[in-house]
Amino acid sequence: MIEAVQGCLAQYVAQLQEPLVTQLYQQLPPGKMLRSRLILAIAPEAIPLAAIVEMIHAASLLHDDVIDDASMRRGLPSINALYGNKRAIMLGDILYSKAFFELAKLPHPIPQIISHAVTLLSVGELLDVELSATFNPDEERYFDMIYKKTGSLIEASAQAAAILAGKERPELYGLYGKNLGIAFQIVDDILDLTQESERLGKPAMADLQEGKTTLPLIYLYESLDPEGRRRLRELHGRALAKEEIAWLRERLEGSGALERAKKRVWSLAQEGIEAVGKEERLLEIMERLIERTH
Amino acid sequence: MIEAVQGCLAQYVAQLQEPLVTQLYQQLPPGKMLRSRLILAIAPEAIPLAAIVEMIHAASLLHDDVIDDASMRRGLPSINALYGNKRAIMLGDILYSKAFFELAKLPHPIPQIISHAVTLLSVGELLDVELSATFNPDEERYFDMIYKKTGSLIEASAQAAAILAGKERPELYGLYGKNLGIAFQIVDDILDLTQESERLGKPAMADLQEGKTTLPLIYLYESLDPEGRRRLRELHGRALAKEEIAWLRERLEGSGALERAKKRVWSLAQEGIEAVGKEERLLEIMERLIERTH
Repeated sequence: MIEAVQGCLAQYVAQLQEPLVTQLYQQLPPGKMLRSRLILAIAPEAIPLAAIVEMIHAASLLHDDVIDDASMRRGLPSINALYGNKRAIMLGDILYSKAFFELAKLPHPIPQIISHAVTLLSVGELLDVELSATFNPDEERYFDMIYKKTGSLIEASAQAAAILAGKERPELYGLYGKNLGIAFQIVDDILDLTQESERLGKPAMADLQEGKTTLPLIYLYESLDPEGRRRLRELHGRALAKEEIAWLRERLEGSGALERAKKRVWSLAQEGIEAVGKEERLLEIMERLIERTH
Repeated sequence: MIEAVQGCLAQYVAQLQEPLVTQLYQQLPPGKMLRSRLILAIAPEAIPLAAIVEMIHAASLLHDDVIDDASMRRGLPSINALYGNKRAIMLGDILYSKAFFELAKLPHPIPQIISHAVTLLSVGELLDVELSATFNPDEERYFDMIYKKTGSLIEASAQAAAILAGKERPELYGLYGKNLGIAFQIVDDILDLTQESERLGKPAMADLQEGKTTLPLIYLYESLDPEGRRRLRELHGRALAKEEIAWLRERLEGSGALERAKKRVWSLAQEGIEAVGKEERLLEIMERLIERTH
């Protein structure tokens, strides 16, 4: 089924009839296609919806990488690193607009559900930039940002798929998707702090250096005494020396911050699964997410 | 009527409920609203369509200014110059997606007509970057690029307005819009070479320095002998000294290239006006465009 989505995507790109676009598109590193797997788990026929959402997701990553000056994506050089910011921005705009063009063919209210999510996603990116300017110890602002940046499109994907599949209460699938998306982001935040660069496919401990005060870091901050807090704040938004990374690792281990973040993941997962009555394929997707935290 | 479009736009932005977005939006320098004037001349009731198209246009300019590293827009500092590339990219994405959200409420086939134009517009921006990499003496490639970058959205605006107004042959309004857009771009290209910075609201003679081989420059190239061609090619894509600008001015005057470009504008205008049976308000819009070349 995932192959069908990839075929549909390739067809959409070919329809643009611009060899340069096809060439750039083929350089995009392949992703996990979480959104497609979710959509097809709810509505097995919804190939075009899955392909549209993947195009939107790819477009948002292209702009995200320009914004973060990222040189790597999924273990490969990013498009902005290979071909410059200009082409990355434009390829993103092309994929967005082609996605909206295809979206307009889907039945009401799906175009509105998905395009509203894209607005939230873009607002979330903007909030991410704002929050990254200083050390942010505010959990609520962090959750609002990751809901918009990561949760909203997965929420909309699940809800739209549920509508296409004729499910009785599509908003409950939306809740599952929202929780899956937020939990997914928190897992990424945890892995940034616990895994090595090789496994991540990007530099480790990068979030804090890039200015991102992720949930485990907020929890770490809450656990520290004033001197520790001062020191953590001082590490924000700059390259870290080996001793500083060692200090951060040590503090994280002693603080229970990672466990607290994992518990948050588990409770989001629990709530999401219950919303959809423990539907087997959705249970499986959520479990695979949680496995990454072990 | 234009005030009604501005009111509708302000309402769309307010609906995003993000003070930062409202604040950034208010810093956008006001434009001539050519697309709204055109839409309302064809369909006086089409306020939402006009506001949607203005949002799309504003989003494309935000990304365009990032791509061109432009510091000025309409005589005022650009958003990327004031707030950085990241915010300019994201504000563009927010305006694009909000536009698509509102577009999805309009009747078939308007969402598809407009979103297809946005794809062409983005492809046109990408082609503009590619063509700017070297001196481009190919008139056909230039026309393909400006049709996509400037003509396609104006074409779609006119065609969509004609459908909303119940006109019999909306595609003829599309042709008028396409010609208006292409002619508009050529006029801009001429003014870049003939006017002073103060009147332009941006540096004069900037196109060639930025790598853009515009139509009058292509015509100038065709008129030169091999030595002149070599010299013109050599000026491409770099800052020009005073003597070099003086040489360019002198050659332009002697070559007839500007007149040839103006003739192209006039014939596009003629064809556009005839397509819509010399409708008075559309005649007026086209005439105002041509006046700028005098």
